[in-house]
Amino acid sequence: MRTQVAIIGAGPAGLLLSHLLAQGGVDSVVLETRSEDYVAARIRAGILEHSSVELLESVGLGGRLRAEGDEHRGIYLQWPGVRQHLDFVNLTGRSVWVYGQTEVQKDLIAARRAGGQEIHYEVADVALHDIESSSPYVTYTDKSGESARLDALVIAGCDGSFGPSRAAVPAAQTFEKVYPYSWFGILADVAPSTDELIYAWHPNGFALHSMRSATVSRLYLQVPNGTDPASWSDDRIWDELATRLGHGQNGWKLTPGPITDKSVLPMRSYVQTPMRHGNLFLAGDAAHIVPPTGAKGLNLAIADVALLGKALVARFRENDTRLADAYSDAAQRRVWRCTHFSWWMTTMLHTSGDPFDAELQLSQLRWVASNEAGATGLAENYAGLPINY
Amino acid sequence: MRTQVAIIGAGPAGLLLSHLLAQGGVDSVVLETRSEDYVAARIRAGILEHSSVELLESVGLGGRLRAEGDEHRGIYLQWPGVRQHLDFVNLTGRSVWVYGQTEVQKDLIAARRAGGQEIHYEVADVALHDIESSSPYVTYTDKSGESARLDALVIAGCDGSFGPSRAAVPAAQTFEKVYPYSWFGILADVAPSTDELIYAWHPNGFALHSMRSATVSRLYLQVPNGTDPASWSDDRIWDELATRLGHGQNGWKLTPGPITDKSVLPMRSYVQTPMRHGNLFLAGDAAHIVPPTGAKGLNLAIADVALLGKALVARFRENDTRLADAYSDAAQRRVWRCTHFSWWMTTMLHTSGDPFDAELQLSQLRWVASNEAGATGLAENYAGLPINY
Repeated sequence: MRTQVAIIGAGPAGLLLSHLLAQGGVDSVVLETRSEDYVAARIRAGILEHSSVELLESVGLGGRLRAEGDEHRGIYLQWPGVRQHLDFVNLTGRSVWVYGQTEVQKDLIAARRAGGQEIHYEVADVALHDIESSSPYVTYTDKSGESARLDALVIAGCDGSFGPSRAAVPAAQTFEKVYPYSWFGILADVAPSTDELIYAWHPNGFALHSMRSATVSRLYLQVPNGTDPASWSDDRIWDELATRLGHGQNGWKLTPGPITDKSVLPMRSYVQTPMRHGNLFLAGDAAHIVPPTGAKGLNLAIADVALLGKALVARFRENDTRLADAYSDAAQRRVWRCTHFSWWMTTMLHTSGDPFDAELQLSQLRWVASNEAGATGLAENYAGLPINY
Repeated sequence: MRTQVAIIGAGPAGLLLSHLLAQGGVDSVVLETRSEDYVAARIRAGILEHSSVELLESVGLGGRLRAEGDEHRGIYLQWPGVRQHLDFVNLTGRSVWVYGQTEVQKDLIAARRAGGQEIHYEVADVALHDIESSSPYVTYTDKSGESARLDALVIAGCDGSFGPSRAAVPAAQTFEKVYPYSWFGILADVAPSTDELIYAWHPNGFALHSMRSATVSRLYLQVPNGTDPASWSDDRIWDELATRLGHGQNGWKLTPGPITDKSVLPMRSYVQTPMRHGNLFLAGDAAHIVPPTGAKGLNLAIADVALLGKALVARFRENDTRLADAYSDAAQRRVWRCTHFSWWMTTMLHTSGDPFDAELQLSQLRWVASNEAGATGLAENYAGLPINY
């Protein structure tokens, strides 16, 4: 089998890349180790920043997003006794949209199916070969157990931090920070108790009230690493959320409901550079992981692919390799900005147990919430920088 | 001996407080363990923020400052290959002034002498008594070796972190962070090689090019804790400064000159709360220490004293204790803002040896230097918040 671009990974990065390439007249084949149902159902991020929405809309993927997604003007920042709204639209002219990654994935699958995209699910033993040559290829075992080979001119590694693409780059430089806490996340079949996300600092630890839709809430608690979700009863979860989110303060109430999913997410920052080696290009989680605070992971993947799609179309259609040559550096500028922002949001909001840190966090929160420059800085980073930052 | 306010410490905080009290018609006596010459000569901070300059001017202490001080519109932020000017005046409408603490001290001594202020230098064995009562007093041994007692209605502890006032507050809450690096500072008899301060991030460590006057430069290098100043030759100092400050880049040159002083400053953040206990009020370094990055120490002391002077005048002249009762909380808001800012500047600019930290720092520096909200945030904090922040 032969194509122009072999895309490894059928998550949002891989499918969006195949979509951008198809629109630009470049052929691709997508390989994915998981099943289509699994990829479509896995629960991930839920916030799309302004330029992600613009990009998806510009390539015909904005219909259901605009109809069923929920535009948010900003977020609430909270600490004991205070809940402060940051209005991103007033501060920066840009909003964000609540639209789950699962929904983006469904839209992408529908679009790629309509476009006749070749996607091979449930493959195994994926290996990259000759990536420094002009004829790289991928070997794998297909769903039926047959050995297969996909020849390409370029390989796009969109296969996350556990996929083989990342490891295929020799002598890559890696940067990592593991945080001493995790997020305990729940999905609940209950209308959100807030119109926009609440990021709450509390002496007991950080809490976040997010949502997926008008009837599904998504909430998180900072917990120690290694916490077993089964060790928390539903009542304990709702009690702790009520405490940290300020149930009863200024008449605000947190409404509990049936919990449909519990999971614990470890938090780390990870960056690998360069994002290109020979004819292998990395995009999304294959090149970088951010902690979820600030909702940058999916948006970074979309931004990578926006750059990479344009670069590969220029290369294949116009024989112009300048954007491809610039890809790694251009993407990394944004990656580090978002890595810094995610680290900053994380370390500002999660308690460490050190009283000095707590006072610094509160001083920082008061300043961000009350000072225009502080609020604008957070808003610009959260609502998202231009793709070509 | 009896007075209304017993001021312990004849540094800038104590002398400015005596000045503000005298202008408000409140009597004070100042006690100081060091000699007048020692206090006047010790080398400390050199940057006055906008509201410090306004305050000094408003109480008749701005004459020599305006004539001999040097107004700076901003600072340079630098990292390898880039030197970026932040123009505080454009960003915030406020400037800063280079005017050494030694000069402020000289102006204060002259003003207090003209005002007939009673100041006892070279006292020893200072002890505070009955601070919870309405008749607190201070015992000490005077310069001639005689035991003495100063009765007062209020004691103002302006005696720094090593003085007895801080320790006289029972059950105070303290917050501390010690940094894993120090500043190696030099004074040199050479015209500054820059018109405004250069804050330089470098893989070898932070460097700062500051100045005292048109003919005296003040420069600093990040060094490991415990560094012996004698272990660095003058040549080595200038070579390392040249490397970190970018000698030769874009034609810029660092001009070396005779080094007249070498010292190593450990760096820590320290806050003690409350800043009032009974009739003892703490101001300046007695209540808080900041690392020097961002030049907040002297300015915080001036801001404390501005609040405290007003509060004590209201108390003694109008029998109105509201400002005195509000002093600790009001001062602490600013203290934590400046403690956070100093910590932020310090941790953004000093290398830790961790490559992930280095990339975060560079991403932060690029953002601050290129983004209006980022630059404004730094400028507002550096040029100084209003006294009543």
